[in-house]
Amino acid sequence: MPPLEFYFDFSSPYGYFASEKIDSIARRFNRDVAWRPVLLGVIFKTTGAQPLVGSAPLKGAYFLRDFARSARLLQVAYKQPASFPIPTQHAARAFYWLHDQSPARAIALAHALYRAYFIDGRDISAAETCVEVAAALGVDRAALSAALQDSAVKERLKTEMDGAIANGVFGSPFIIVDGEPFHGADRLDQVERWLGTGGW
Amino acid sequence: MPPLEFYFDFSSPYGYFASEKIDSIARRFNRDVAWRPVLLGVIFKTTGAQPLVGSAPLKGAYFLRDFARSARLLQVAYKQPASFPIPTQHAARAFYWLHDQSPARAIALAHALYRAYFIDGRDISAAETCVEVAAALGVDRAALSAALQDSAVKERLKTEMDGAIANGVFGSPFIIVDGEPFHGADRLDQVERWLGTGGW
Repeated sequence: MPPLEFYFDFSSPYGYFASEKIDSIARRFNRDVAWRPVLLGVIFKTTGAQPLVGSAPLKGAYFLRDFARSARLLQVAYKQPASFPIPTQHAARAFYWLHDQSPARAIALAHALYRAYFIDGRDISAAETCVEVAAALGVDRAALSAALQDSAVKERLKTEMDGAIANGVFGSPFIIVDGEPFHGADRLDQVERWLGTGGW
Repeated sequence: MPPLEFYFDFSSPYGYFASEKIDSIARRFNRDVAWRPVLLGVIFKTTGAQPLVGSAPLKGAYFLRDFARSARLLQVAYKQPASFPIPTQHAARAFYWLHDQSPARAIALAHALYRAYFIDGRDISAAETCVEVAAALGVDRAALSAALQDSAVKERLKTEMDGAIANGVFGSPFIIVDGEPFHGADRLDQVERWLGTGGW
């Protein structure tokens, strides 16, 4: 069976919540997960959408409340970062660079980056912060610093973005199960049901 | 206990799905529901948001698929209307006009309007269609036709819209339980849980 495709932005609380659950859900059905960070800012330029918090009146207050409420419901640690949302191209590039060496280590890095931002309040928009978080996992500091400036690594992320948009990804998290797309952390129960039944 | 506040647009599939479930959920907790149709078009002007289907590439295909999938999951009859989305000011005005005579009859009319649109494919954007649907429930045809042109009835809807925006309503369905806001038909399970526990 093909892996679940798990698209997320490192600045997305709902993506973070899903990241804490998706592997255990997939394991229950003997399925793998392909983790694919994307940049919502780039996708929003295509869809004309706006961030949940910041630009739109009314919605911002609701979503700030819902981030905390969803975290409590899902029993995931969460602290609203002071700087939010943030650009996440360095985090995404670090992920794909490491992924091409070891998918498992890249997933460990994704967890570490998400938790650094959404639990410890560290600003992972900075390349240096991404490097520090990776170094704590044993990643070579100098190699990653160089990779984040490497045009091939930048191109790698662009290719992933094109693929995501071609697959219809317009938000975070966005999970594709055997061709069936699900948007939102509040659809994890539907993802689980679909895995169990093959549809309804 | 105060009633649940149930905001919805007559052109919203997710509002329709919620309309088929909300009263039975509330009854289980001995709670009433205050039904409050709104006009998403007016709200979107305030929030800068866009309809789910139509203006945004990528999202349209997903939501058309999700309407049908959600209907199957919730076991609610659904047929995608040919004309979608539609303006719903006549439907909303008919609702409030009847509501001021009998809240229970207004809820019956809301069900009939939603089902006329989302099951039978009737275009309820037309005042005449709203009158026909209401007449089938025994509503006086001439009185309703006159009401739909009455400036006091128009003003009534405007007042409701101001109240909805003041309450933070930015989508459909939008359900407020004892001050706690929930957006989306996929949050009905959370509404139910909140009613049972008083929060988490």
